[in-house]
Amino acid sequence: MTLSLSDIQAAHERIKPYIIKTPVLRLHNLEEILGCEVYVKLENMQRTNAFKFRGVMNALLQLTDEELSRGVVTSSSGNHGHAIAYASKTLGIKATVGVPDTAPPFKLQKIEEHGAEIIPTTVEERFKLQDSLVEEFGYTLIPPFNDYRIMAGQGTVGLEILEQLPEVDHIFVPTSGGGLISGIGTAVKETTNTVKIHGVEPANLPKFSESLKNGELTQVENKGTIADGLVSIIPGEKNFSVVQKYVDTFHTVSEEAMKKGQKLMLMEAKILTEISSSIAIGGILNGEIEVNPEDKVCFVITGGNLGFDQLDYIKDTDY
Amino acid sequence: MTLSLSDIQAAHERIKPYIIKTPVLRLHNLEEILGCEVYVKLENMQRTNAFKFRGVMNALLQLTDEELSRGVVTSSSGNHGHAIAYASKTLGIKATVGVPDTAPPFKLQKIEEHGAEIIPTTVEERFKLQDSLVEEFGYTLIPPFNDYRIMAGQGTVGLEILEQLPEVDHIFVPTSGGGLISGIGTAVKETTNTVKIHGVEPANLPKFSESLKNGELTQVENKGTIADGLVSIIPGEKNFSVVQKYVDTFHTVSEEAMKKGQKLMLMEAKILTEISSSIAIGGILNGEIEVNPEDKVCFVITGGNLGFDQLDYIKDTDY
Repeated sequence: MTLSLSDIQAAHERIKPYIIKTPVLRLHNLEEILGCEVYVKLENMQRTNAFKFRGVMNALLQLTDEELSRGVVTSSSGNHGHAIAYASKTLGIKATVGVPDTAPPFKLQKIEEHGAEIIPTTVEERFKLQDSLVEEFGYTLIPPFNDYRIMAGQGTVGLEILEQLPEVDHIFVPTSGGGLISGIGTAVKETTNTVKIHGVEPANLPKFSESLKNGELTQVENKGTIADGLVSIIPGEKNFSVVQKYVDTFHTVSEEAMKKGQKLMLMEAKILTEISSSIAIGGILNGEIEVNPEDKVCFVITGGNLGFDQLDYIKDTDY
Repeated sequence: MTLSLSDIQAAHERIKPYIIKTPVLRLHNLEEILGCEVYVKLENMQRTNAFKFRGVMNALLQLTDEELSRGVVTSSSGNHGHAIAYASKTLGIKATVGVPDTAPPFKLQKIEEHGAEIIPTTVEERFKLQDSLVEEFGYTLIPPFNDYRIMAGQGTVGLEILEQLPEVDHIFVPTSGGGLISGIGTAVKETTNTVKIHGVEPANLPKFSESLKNGELTQVENKGTIADGLVSIIPGEKNFSVVQKYVDTFHTVSEEAMKKGQKLMLMEAKILTEISSSIAIGGILNGEIEVNPEDKVCFVITGGNLGFDQLDYIKDTDY
């Protein structure tokens, strides 16, 4: 089994009543500094302020009534947990989220706000916890990635970009486990051969770059990153084969460049992004990724969840 | 003489090659909290990050070759000075801006960046200075408002809203001297009678509310406001008669509400606005302005020029 365009089209029909068709904007004011035609797909304006809601909704809408009545579980301190909580509230079902003690209060609050049950855990214990909850209460596990329902949901971002910007030449996708890029890659490459797909990951966590070089799943050392949405140390297995097939290039970007990208987006484009979302723009700005002036480049802005205090990160950043 | 729809249409044709047709976005994620359908016209994404560029460009493009060759002058520490500097660079002409010593370094830098000559002055001396520069060097004075060319340029915002959101019910316009609202009012009311126009000003500087009540231009006491784009103490004379004719209601908003509006826009809509631009959203959020759930409400986001440090204003603001 793999992911196909028709899965993504079916996911789109399924989730359309619930998601926001987020805008694609041209950012004229960034074009001189980045050196290409700049477009952004604003998933930071999605429900729960991240693309994760698409995949979660696509998974939940395929559960049976009995599964729905028992509820769902996941473990996440980030946008996936937030999406699970909000989607469950929307569908009127019970959600339980194992939240590691490393989670920032801001994320915890969002998950709580939507009425999910929070069970404190640790990074090490969290998967054991969720498995035990599945066993004890019969909850259905909704993983953050490496799941075809999730990948198909995320892929709807690609369908919308093609519809909103059919003349696009390049799409840059921030990548952690690879659910989003494998979804977008499948949606785009099974529709047209005129668009190039580029993955971008922190230089401190080059799991896709290394895995692609080695031709096999490769776990990298966790050197840490400020991009709290891009912390995977190994590609999802189901995602990796799609990435091998459909992604044109993969890029790594420095921590400094990500901060520059976030600050540029905020101060010049007037758009608040998570630092993970600005990785490709930061890479270009800092000379780590090349583009051409005639290229129509679409950057997927994956999310905008950050606490006001986190802006301190970029207080002293110049771009 | 007054302002007419055809002046604004002519202005639009004139400035189209230079301006950004800024997006109108629906902000689904603010609708529950504000209690209406929420749309924003994003002039913070305009060239120079403010609507002021439209009026300035419309004025400059009507100068004779001789006037252009002599150059232009204005006095402004804010978005008008920035727009004059950038527009002059675009047209390859000389600009001189009298900048009062109260101007924040951030604004000064923007004016300098675009190559305008800066002459330091004071708030009290600035008009005398610009008059003496006109006399000595033959510069053409481009005032920030109370000028039909400027008003016509600003009115193009209204034409674009009608085109981008023909079903709009209400348009809220932050108001200082009144150039923008008289332009938008004329553009909209001479096209359709189905849209209501609402002015919004700081409660500390209720010059339009007072003038409308008194039926004549009324200067108000300067109690100060954090909304640095809304500091006029008296309506522009040419603007006032248009406002009397075309504006449906005028609202005053507290300082606290403006801060709430700015923070809501940043944290929930992911859009960075000047505090002046969030005045209507803040007013609704804080219960100072009423709207109805079935209303399609468009908020003009007039600008997004602020230094990173200015975000400190809203550090402790809850919404």
